[in-house]
Amino acid sequence: MSLLVVGTVAFDAIETPFGKTDKIVGGAATYIGLSASKLSDKINLVSVVGDDFPSEAIDMLKNHKVDTAGLQIKKGEKTFFWSGRYHNNMNSRDTIDTQLNVLETFDPVVPEQYKDCQILMLGNLMPIIQQQVFNQLTKKPELTVLDTMNFWMDNCMDDLMEALKHVDVLTINDEEARQLSGEYSLVVAAKKIMSFGPKTLIIKKGEHGALLFNGDKKFFAPAMPLEKVFDPTGAGDTFAGGFVGFLHKTQDFSFENMKRAVVYGSAMASFCVEEFGTERIANLSMSEVEERLQEFVDLSHFDLA
Amino acid sequence: MSLLVVGTVAFDAIETPFGKTDKIVGGAATYIGLSASKLSDKINLVSVVGDDFPSEAIDMLKNHKVDTAGLQIKKGEKTFFWSGRYHNNMNSRDTIDTQLNVLETFDPVVPEQYKDCQILMLGNLMPIIQQQVFNQLTKKPELTVLDTMNFWMDNCMDDLMEALKHVDVLTINDEEARQLSGEYSLVVAAKKIMSFGPKTLIIKKGEHGALLFNGDKKFFAPAMPLEKVFDPTGAGDTFAGGFVGFLHKTQDFSFENMKRAVVYGSAMASFCVEEFGTERIANLSMSEVEERLQEFVDLSHFDLA
Repeated sequence: MSLLVVGTVAFDAIETPFGKTDKIVGGAATYIGLSASKLSDKINLVSVVGDDFPSEAIDMLKNHKVDTAGLQIKKGEKTFFWSGRYHNNMNSRDTIDTQLNVLETFDPVVPEQYKDCQILMLGNLMPIIQQQVFNQLTKKPELTVLDTMNFWMDNCMDDLMEALKHVDVLTINDEEARQLSGEYSLVVAAKKIMSFGPKTLIIKKGEHGALLFNGDKKFFAPAMPLEKVFDPTGAGDTFAGGFVGFLHKTQDFSFENMKRAVVYGSAMASFCVEEFGTERIANLSMSEVEERLQEFVDLSHFDLA
Repeated sequence: MSLLVVGTVAFDAIETPFGKTDKIVGGAATYIGLSASKLSDKINLVSVVGDDFPSEAIDMLKNHKVDTAGLQIKKGEKTFFWSGRYHNNMNSRDTIDTQLNVLETFDPVVPEQYKDCQILMLGNLMPIIQQQVFNQLTKKPELTVLDTMNFWMDNCMDDLMEALKHVDVLTINDEEARQLSGEYSLVVAAKKIMSFGPKTLIIKKGEHGALLFNGDKKFFAPAMPLEKVFDPTGAGDTFAGGFVGFLHKTQDFSFENMKRAVVYGSAMASFCVEEFGTERIANLSMSEVEERLQEFVDLSHFDLA
């Protein structure tokens, strides 16, 4: 019963009001895998890098018990690179540079031993590649979660709509939910998006928390108000990793348990932003996670009388 | 043991993507008083209007058991008028017209029978007028709540800082919290603002909910995700009215009870935006309020295991 994570493994160069980095290890699958590994095991990775990617970074994933048999290393090619600068409010950013490199010709190959995965987590990638992974599986996963972004809505909406038909849970942010549905109200947007395929929708609102929709049911998890947001890169992927990691560990895909999974995802994301890159998540202890979860309870619980 | 509400009683003309109104009754004290009246009684009003203000609107307040002995009616003068247009996202608006009229010379007079109020709710007004009301009281209220806005921070910061020294609870929005503190992180901003006087701070984030801070304690109440937001005018005042109305009714000013009060305020505000002006709040039944409160419980509650 494995969790298959598909997505980018990449280099990022990040500038925030608090400092800047040279090339550091990033990518959706890196954040998802690391985050999920804090909560569960049997995590398999499908991705691609160039031979410029440091073996130490692959070892770091292995040390977190993330299986990297599905990580292609392309000789003589370069790893996907993204560089961006965050504005003062940390809620918006400019892309300075995107070098697709190995991603341009990425042909995902799912190793035999991954093909019966229980949960499939499709990190943000070209929808047709996400679909190619899905098509290689020997059985339909019990739960398929897909993350995507506005870029694919702008450029390959038909492929995305096709992919959505096979998806149980979709995670997007509020602006993307509005774009995908053409509706401003997130409640109306959610209904429309769930009619496209996903039974469950998670709308990520960054520092404003996350909404979980399933049929007529809805749940809201706040983001933890923090003294310092150092680097938001990877927070959404870390959230997704916490979400699927918790579901994989608990083996319960009910709405009640998805509520918990959203809180776990929010807790993991709240750590991610405290330092540059993957550092905070990689070094995170389970007791820190448990402490933070209790803070979420204290933050959001009340009784009416 | 009365609740004294001070603020504007006004005419508004509102344009939203869903329609526009002629002059309708509005004003901070109107929304606060109406909202509080749904939860508590012994509500007294200090405000000013011109003789163009319809007696039916005053009767409407009286019918809600809001005492209007402190509502000055200025012969030959005109009521404060505000006109604004909301953008498509409803989160921002342009002021089209502001006619101060009677507000320009407003000299608040607190009737004798109001002077021993238990809770003082100072709605958004020039800080020096808020201070004048405070100074007329025969004893310090057990709880003073003050609402203000960026306009006063821009134009009379010294007066505002002076008023804050006497305040127990300050309610402002997130941008105002950042402006008042000079800090971007709301957690850091809250600490700084609480050092100015208020032991408790409520940061209103509109559709993104509300944060309650007291010392090191914090609580977050989400806004109810709605199918349709028709008119946001008065939502913040309706929130404040629900907050003080609940505290006045329950006679418990502890942090735990303030958490409930914030949820009550959020519930009242969620109704306010469903129709133009005060209509929805004026016609609201207690069973509707109770049903909405349960929706807030369902929206935000989870257990960790």
